[in-house]
Amino acid sequence: MAINYPNGKKFVPPKEKPVKAKKKDFSFSNRGKTLEDELNETNDYYLQLGLAVIHKKPVPVQIVKVEYPSRSAAVIREAYFRAPSTTDYNGVWNGRYVDFEAKETENKTSFPLKNIHDHQIHHMSQVVKHQGLAFLIIRFSSLERYFIMRFEALEIFWNRMITGGRKSISLEEIEDTAVEIMPGAFPRIDYLPVLQNL
Amino acid sequence: MAINYPNGKKFVPPKEKPVKAKKKDFSFSNRGKTLEDELNETNDYYLQLGLAVIHKKPVPVQIVKVEYPSRSAAVIREAYFRAPSTTDYNGVWNGRYVDFEAKETENKTSFPLKNIHDHQIHHMSQVVKHQGLAFLIIRFSSLERYFIMRFEALEIFWNRMITGGRKSISLEEIEDTAVEIMPGAFPRIDYLPVLQNL
Repeated sequence: MAINYPNGKKFVPPKEKPVKAKKKDFSFSNRGKTLEDELNETNDYYLQLGLAVIHKKPVPVQIVKVEYPSRSAAVIREAYFRAPSTTDYNGVWNGRYVDFEAKETENKTSFPLKNIHDHQIHHMSQVVKHQGLAFLIIRFSSLERYFIMRFEALEIFWNRMITGGRKSISLEEIEDTAVEIMPGAFPRIDYLPVLQNL
Repeated sequence: MAINYPNGKKFVPPKEKPVKAKKKDFSFSNRGKTLEDELNETNDYYLQLGLAVIHKKPVPVQIVKVEYPSRSAAVIREAYFRAPSTTDYNGVWNGRYVDFEAKETENKTSFPLKNIHDHQIHHMSQVVKHQGLAFLIIRFSSLERYFIMRFEALEIFWNRMITGGRKSISLEEIEDTAVEIMPGAFPRIDYLPVLQNL
């Protein structure tokens, strides 16, 4: 199934973003980074220190046409974004299987559930059945606040929605049911210690 | 890093292969399937029966140019294959983290180690350190024989190569150090029972 890019935003190739003139603001040197950047840095840090082996999965694309110019790398000339069938991140920590999705919102008072796909919910529920750890990392970008919500809590809000309830999780509900992570320098989003208590 | 397609073969988009007139040969109805097809079917079977949650990762591509035709799906117009930084398959089974690479060879007497990347070896060694299960599935396509070799055995042959020894694993060595899987109908490559003993 070819789709528009899943999050509804235009795709910006990682590491290939046009260089923008940035305001210098050394006290917030991580501003401008996406949650994906922050988690990739965090996972690299964990990997370097031998704490966990967790990677982001590649963006799923349906490749239709490839050219093979002589003496150079193959070029994909036609491809389409596909809906992911799983979450974006998984790996192993401490003998446990770890699986999560990461989403950011500009919203200041709630997290809209339209950011999550139902097949991702289905996937996470299967992970939990097999004794894996499944959770959601939420970043409120405007507030610079980060939360880790285990799947079992997310599922309750998801079920409320599909049975006709509200289509988002209020910040208050998140404060009550998720664990807040204070962003740091190294690693940026230190989520492993939270898993100890999940 | 843009590269030619990692296995050195031209890329054939999955599910989009040109339909070839096939010889009807009902006694070997799985002939013509790639190992990837067979493993995807196997993993689907495991998923449907609730036995394991194991998926193939998408092919990693570096996306450079995307067009947004109005009213239709975004089209990737320039992208390059990247070298994978991990193995192709991972997931959870029985509370354990499972991670493997799958390779097929037309060779009848040995498995050439050039099919494996050194960063995949590095990745599998990290997985094992974190108490995950890491292994290689080898298909000898001409012989219709399948083996599952745990990483610990693969590593010995890999180290032999990088210290100047032979660049392949002989079929005899594979018979001695790996477990043979007899291909079946449902599932095609039933590798989970082998993991019990790894």
